[in-house]
Amino acid sequence: MILPPGSTLGILGGGQLGRYMALAAQQRGYRVAVLDPDPDAPAHQVAHVRFVAPYDDPDALKDLAGICQAVTTEFENVPASSLAPFAARGVPVRPGAKALAACQDRILEKTLVNGAGIDTAPWRPILADFELPEALKAMGGDAILKTARSGYDGKGQARVRNIEEALAAFARFGGVPCVLEGVVPFLMECSVLVARDVQGRSQSLPVCENMHSHHILDVTVCPARVSDAAARAMRSRAARLAQELDYVGHLAVEFFVLTDQSVVVNELAPRPHNSGHLTIDSCVHSQFEEHVRCVLGWSALPYDLLHPASAMANLLGDLWETGEPAWSSLDEFPEVRLHLYGKRAPRPGRKMGHLTSWGDTPEEAESRVRLARESLLRRS
Amino acid sequence: MILPPGSTLGILGGGQLGRYMALAAQQRGYRVAVLDPDPDAPAHQVAHVRFVAPYDDPDALKDLAGICQAVTTEFENVPASSLAPFAARGVPVRPGAKALAACQDRILEKTLVNGAGIDTAPWRPILADFELPEALKAMGGDAILKTARSGYDGKGQARVRNIEEALAAFARFGGVPCVLEGVVPFLMECSVLVARDVQGRSQSLPVCENMHSHHILDVTVCPARVSDAAARAMRSRAARLAQELDYVGHLAVEFFVLTDQSVVVNELAPRPHNSGHLTIDSCVHSQFEEHVRCVLGWSALPYDLLHPASAMANLLGDLWETGEPAWSSLDEFPEVRLHLYGKRAPRPGRKMGHLTSWGDTPEEAESRVRLARESLLRRS
Repeated sequence: MILPPGSTLGILGGGQLGRYMALAAQQRGYRVAVLDPDPDAPAHQVAHVRFVAPYDDPDALKDLAGICQAVTTEFENVPASSLAPFAARGVPVRPGAKALAACQDRILEKTLVNGAGIDTAPWRPILADFELPEALKAMGGDAILKTARSGYDGKGQARVRNIEEALAAFARFGGVPCVLEGVVPFLMECSVLVARDVQGRSQSLPVCENMHSHHILDVTVCPARVSDAAARAMRSRAARLAQELDYVGHLAVEFFVLTDQSVVVNELAPRPHNSGHLTIDSCVHSQFEEHVRCVLGWSALPYDLLHPASAMANLLGDLWETGEPAWSSLDEFPEVRLHLYGKRAPRPGRKMGHLTSWGDTPEEAESRVRLARESLLRRS
Repeated sequence: MILPPGSTLGILGGGQLGRYMALAAQQRGYRVAVLDPDPDAPAHQVAHVRFVAPYDDPDALKDLAGICQAVTTEFENVPASSLAPFAARGVPVRPGAKALAACQDRILEKTLVNGAGIDTAPWRPILADFELPEALKAMGGDAILKTARSGYDGKGQARVRNIEEALAAFARFGGVPCVLEGVVPFLMECSVLVARDVQGRSQSLPVCENMHSHHILDVTVCPARVSDAAARAMRSRAARLAQELDYVGHLAVEFFVLTDQSVVVNELAPRPHNSGHLTIDSCVHSQFEEHVRCVLGWSALPYDLLHPASAMANLLGDLWETGEPAWSSLDEFPEVRLHLYGKRAPRPGRKMGHLTSWGDTPEEAESRVRLARESLLRRS
């Protein structure tokens, strides 16, 4: 059942998530082969074998399938045709095609979530512009139009408050399939990270609380400051969704916690998740280790925090705007750890790295990562 | 002072120590270039740039010096000539040539230690066989003959109880320079891991207690079960030696604790050390992170244990003797972590990986790694 150490794990995608997956597999003596079109991709920098090619390059996919004993993906938008060469050779694809397909398309995803008896915000599929007036009316005249595919970090989304705005947004997105989502009055955004192994056992991290800035995750704190009932509801729903998807690996389920502490699913990410980066330093096993454990046939392990609370703050390219960050100021924060992904060009909004910390309370952990991040702006 | 992340760290040597150095540098966004003659060396598997060449290959050394902003070594037996191309280009070599030279030669090493006012076991340099009779007599007729250079894990050592044995051992070693060491009645072998930064500040880990089997490190427990006075003496001596050597990076100092709890230095290793592998999971910053921090110009950070006690057990190739170890039995030990180095051939005595754990007492941590290791021998 367990692929023996020394086997090769294939990873489609060479960003920071792929990089951390590679590092986690290497820790247990596995070889890692990465496919990414960018020769300088973060995961290529640490991989044993590199395929520099587009994700749909048939030769590269065939060669990769020929040397690996399991394959995983760092993002949901892998074309199904890219997985075929692995299936053809009997190389397990984890998570599987079903889970990836469901997470690639908001219409499929929300249908699956609701079909499992789990609430989302109210929504309607929009396949043509003539569907917009009735759908917008059903949402109370105020909604968010999202493309069904390829959206992330707020891209492919528009708040629409009347039918003219809705039609204009739909046209701007090129008339592709969309969903129209009702605006729910939420207190907080949360995520549940659940690892599920080949035997169907799942383990989840205490709920993470996510704070965004300009639609990009900014700070995560764990455990989330929600009621016990809300936390239990989110963890049990995430585990149920992993089961519905026959999921193997690490699944992130994003939730909105509403003003009455009820919860609705926002979206799924079939992979380790930015909000789980705090597990690298704050848990016995990180989300990346849990992911590769499950992908390689090991069992999912309990996901305990080493500290009562922990936090993570993203470092975006903006931090480099006026020069190299003041790294030495981190000396004042021995309980804060720096992670950088090896990206050369610090463009504004680009995720370059993150800080993690911990403490006795969520507030203590959060304030440490925020203060440490601010200290990086001091110019020396 | 701090080399900016994105800079390239050169590593001479591609074994498991080089591999962990690479992983530690990559965590902070550094690039890593490794030189090792074995194309499948553990560190090559994770390096960004690979030089597959002998350690004294002038072209490879020149090319490596041309792309890296700092260079370090994973073993002490680097020829001084291999460091020259780096010095010639102004690439900092850390630890420096002085420290490496002192640790390459037991005669220099013991002279330096004694010169710093620190005890070793009694010893005599042996440059020719006619020096043996008087030296052996001074050691009470029972001693250990060790080659001055190139010994490790008990290689190049012989216990000699009379002059015939001493002469035979000296001849067997080829008449190379040796030291004759007196046999000291020790209770325990210990190591102190000390990181020293470019500003001369040093930080050390609580003393490690090392248990050997067939001259190879078997199990390490931290903190060592010694008196507070002995622990203080070892830590202060290690820091003094790092200072004497103008050391930058991570130095391991091995000690014998004698029956009266006095301590003598056994030997130095100018690099992270097998006994420090427990820091990977049991400290905020591992020995490898401390090493690369110091090499790359960051400050040494306090070295606190996350748990009251921790332990490490080596996994030697012997474990594979009758087939693949029973990995799934580790499921019963969620508080034990497995590390493997990516080596293909599990030869007896070869260090393939290790287990780490922790607990409230050294006994608890030790028993966890020992039981987990035994469980790997159950055949499935």
